[in-house]
Amino acid sequence: MSRFFRNHWYAAAWSREVGDQPFARRLLGEPLVLFRQADGSPAALTDRCPHRLVPLSMGSCVQGRIRCTYHGMEFDGAGRCVHIPAQSAIPPRARTRSFPTIERYGLVWVWMGAAEQADPVRMPCVEKYGEAGWDVMEGGYQHHPSNYLNLIENLMDPAHTTFLHANTIGNPLASDRPVTTERADDYIVAYRWLEDTRPSPHDRNRLDVGDIAVDRGQYFYFYLPAMSRVETIVVAAGTERTEANLCKGMRTYSYKFLTPESETATHFFWLHVRNYQVGDPEAAARLRAALEQTYTEDLAIEIAMQRSQEETGLRQQVALEIDRAPIMALRMLDRMIEAEAASMSGPTTPHHEDGKHAST
Amino acid sequence: MSRFFRNHWYAAAWSREVGDQPFARRLLGEPLVLFRQADGSPAALTDRCPHRLVPLSMGSCVQGRIRCTYHGMEFDGAGRCVHIPAQSAIPPRARTRSFPTIERYGLVWVWMGAAEQADPVRMPCVEKYGEAGWDVMEGGYQHHPSNYLNLIENLMDPAHTTFLHANTIGNPLASDRPVTTERADDYIVAYRWLEDTRPSPHDRNRLDVGDIAVDRGQYFYFYLPAMSRVETIVVAAGTERTEANLCKGMRTYSYKFLTPESETATHFFWLHVRNYQVGDPEAAARLRAALEQTYTEDLAIEIAMQRSQEETGLRQQVALEIDRAPIMALRMLDRMIEAEAASMSGPTTPHHEDGKHAST
Amino acid sequence: MSRFFRNHWYAAAWSREVGDQPFARRLLGEPLVLFRQADGSPAALTDRCPHRLVPLSMGSCVQGRIRCTYHGMEFDGAGRCVHIPAQSAIPPRARTRSFPTIERYGLVWVWMGAAEQADPVRMPCVEKYGEAGWDVMEGGYQHHPSNYLNLIENLMDPAHTTFLHANTIGNPLASDRPVTTERADDYIVAYRWLEDTRPSPHDRNRLDVGDIAVDRGQYFYFYLPAMSRVETIVVAAGTERTEANLCKGMRTYSYKFLTPESETATHFFWLHVRNYQVGDPEAAARLRAALEQTYTEDLAIEIAMQRSQEETGLRQQVALEIDRAPIMALRMLDRMIEAEAASMSGPTTPHHEDGKHAST
Repeated sequence: MSRFFRNHWYAAAWSREVGDQPFARRLLGEPLVLFRQADGSPAALTDRCPHRLVPLSMGSCVQGRIRCTYHGMEFDGAGRCVHIPAQSAIPPRARTRSFPTIERYGLVWVWMGAAEQADPVRMPCVEKYGEAGWDVMEGGYQHHPSNYLNLIENLMDPAHTTFLHANTIGNPLASDRPVTTERADDYIVAYRWLEDTRPSPHDRNRLDVGDIAVDRGQYFYFYLPAMSRVETIVVAAGTERTEANLCKGMRTYSYKFLTPESETATHFFWLHVRNYQVGDPEAAARLRAALEQTYTEDLAIEIAMQRSQEETGLRQQVALEIDRAPIMALRMLDRMIEAEAASMSGPTTPHHEDGKHAST
Repeated sequence: MSRFFRNHWYAAAWSREVGDQPFARRLLGEPLVLFRQADGSPAALTDRCPHRLVPLSMGSCVQGRIRCTYHGMEFDGAGRCVHIPAQSAIPPRARTRSFPTIERYGLVWVWMGAAEQADPVRMPCVEKYGEAGWDVMEGGYQHHPSNYLNLIENLMDPAHTTFLHANTIGNPLASDRPVTTERADDYIVAYRWLEDTRPSPHDRNRLDVGDIAVDRGQYFYFYLPAMSRVETIVVAAGTERTEANLCKGMRTYSYKFLTPESETATHFFWLHVRNYQVGDPEAAARLRAALEQTYTEDLAIEIAMQRSQEETGLRQQVALEIDRAPIMALRMLDRMIEAEAASMSGPTTPHHEDGKHAST
Repeated sequence: MSRFFRNHWYAAAWSREVGDQPFARRLLGEPLVLFRQADGSPAALTDRCPHRLVPLSMGSCVQGRIRCTYHGMEFDGAGRCVHIPAQSAIPPRARTRSFPTIERYGLVWVWMGAAEQADPVRMPCVEKYGEAGWDVMEGGYQHHPSNYLNLIENLMDPAHTTFLHANTIGNPLASDRPVTTERADDYIVAYRWLEDTRPSPHDRNRLDVGDIAVDRGQYFYFYLPAMSRVETIVVAAGTERTEANLCKGMRTYSYKFLTPESETATHFFWLHVRNYQVGDPEAAARLRAALEQTYTEDLAIEIAMQRSQEETGLRQQVALEIDRAPIMALRMLDRMIEAEAASMSGPTTPHHEDGKHAST
């Protein structure tokens, strides 16, 4: 499948990556430059000066505009050229495409589809972000040189953790427990509870739960087309599963935002919310290291899969029972992409003309 | 020529390369994983888990089986999946291709063609291997990023040694001596004798023969499709050439086993048998270094030829008299490949089902 | 535009690069080997032995011939094989193409077109080279992985210096001055004078002109297809512009010789002639460093443009007023290439048979 769903707010960069200098990143095959306008809000343009196609990101920011390094042409956040040295008339074609942006959750998000359909209401939501009693670990990023479908499958697939992540988050006890898969309009969830069990090695590392019997729940959500949320809950065995009780246990929301760079590579942004070890920087550092090690284990597999897929032209040769949720997710995504492509045959306004950005 | 002869035992790895961990190597364009079964015998499978195409070589060996690192599926030496975690039924398509193997001469050999035609009788033979009075130097390996035909030509071509190997095995005296070329059903041989001559610099390095006059014979055998044997004999000038007399002189059998990795690269295994400086590790180390230097000189040429061939689409523009043996070898190989391709149009059993390996 | 103009003397190498050993360089997509014949004059051959396509540049020079490293075949400066070891008859096809050469201005020039049209009269001319009162800085070379048209445009474009070269040769005062563009049969020139102005930072570095008012002229010549000459003149403000007066001021001729390596890379030779700080090695070293920094700034842009062009299949999306001279230059070149291609349809003698070289 060589297509992308475009009408979506994709995570493009951490806010701190977009500072005084232009920042280049490729999204859905399109080279973008991100920079800050005079009011500090981010702008996203196609990263090519229309004059000689030099990347604007090689230039500099000047009073909320971006100036091409080659001949000094300046562009505003709407992609319009607003200054040409030694030339008074600005040709109408002196512009580059602009994309709507939103800054939220410490990230700059870019709407990669038709600008007139960009709607802040369609922004992904991060649970408990900024709430008292919860700690957020931000800034996670990895470059995964693999098609984003491989990442979706991986994130919808609890089964692999026992093997691939045996030394980190894997729990040997979990390997034989069946998974329940459900779907809604815009997401899939696969979940399982291990009841009256021992805490996982990872649980013990992060919290001194001792050797009490626990119930352990894992919910693998995938919000189409690009967001994974894995919830983990550890409560004393037999606890009634009310929302209040679950929040008294050890609870995490682990988010991953997948943004295709191209058909063969994916930007992997991660953000982690938890209600334990809040305000403990040493615990946070240990947790960050463990998560990054886990994602790096996935990365190695995804790179190898990408190579095999390119060599064989196949994705898989046999499906297993554990593939139910991944298969469902890919089918939903496929239908979304087809529906969008069909609706795109009508008239669109590919260029975002007004340079305004949605407020957060 | 972009084809391979498949019905052959190809050298795949030195025995010591296949230990407790899976070992990956590409042969004839096919990614293979080698590992040891419960009885220690080697197995060779296509290096792709049928589930998500992850290389099995990224996994581990468990009781004579290979376990995929991603979801823990286990395969036996016949390529059959024998265990799927959290799933009782094993789908028939949960298998990967298996290739017959033989372990002999310190090497693991893999039959890359139709499994039902695999026959130990067709194994290459190494002269004097393991016999008293002869020393074997094993373990030689180089990766040559060049088509294997370039290596065949090089190995059938005594003429180049004077120039390319001037500082190692080259003998200036040999450059004008004519070569006799003969062919049999399954090999070509090009040979020449230098009579009543001085020992080559290389001869003097390896044996204190002093300055006596010698007769020096070189036989360049190529056994189609993949084995070169170069015999060198140095005897006192005028010695009658009986087999017994020749073995009393200084005699070597220098073997190279060529295994195409792909159309643009070749695995070069070498093994050297000699009847002098037997049991002398320092002499062996010197000899090994000299041989490796020689092969590295060839390697540089082969890489350059490959580039020129890819750029021009040609192999050569003019043929010389010294090309007789190489041309004959390539023609024989071409006919073998054509005959095999013709016979392949009939029904074949590409998958090796029983997991058995030929005994040595 | 994927074509080259061939009937031209292209700069191929600095004379010092062609010494005792063969020197390899690719020109217009053709791999060449340069070496010196018995009389010291340079020869240029296609860098492939006709036997097995090994680059002749891997071999050695023997008495004014080049010897292939693989089998010792020897070729003279006309590309004829003159010796084959162990073979008396030399086949007629045992030859490689030879190209006419000239050695002048410290460079070896190669005629890449039809040999019978090679004419020393058509050699580029370097002003003041070797004249008293003028100093020459030779030996400049950079490899620019970008199509040569990008370099032509850059060299015909005074406007970019203010921005791209702000820290080296850029002069902020120049950015708004209009440029006059003129053309002749074989060149384009774009020039401008800044009158009654202050010396540029670069001017002050190279000459203690103090803070006097100056007139500053810049002439950007491009001689099709491959030579740029930028003249810079600084004289006291109001000086009458006679040739004698201009030579009394600070004057430079900055030459660049562009030789396409391929469609995606260009050899950039530069040579600088000046009438100030003559015989001052420290000033020359500073000037060389400044020029190289400037060219490296251009290089970064050209690499980025090449990438954008390959990705989009475009060269530019909007033209500016400053593009007049570059556009004119590319059109002239385009017509030259078309005319040459048309004339090539007739009979040509692609091989240079006599091995003679034009004298300088």
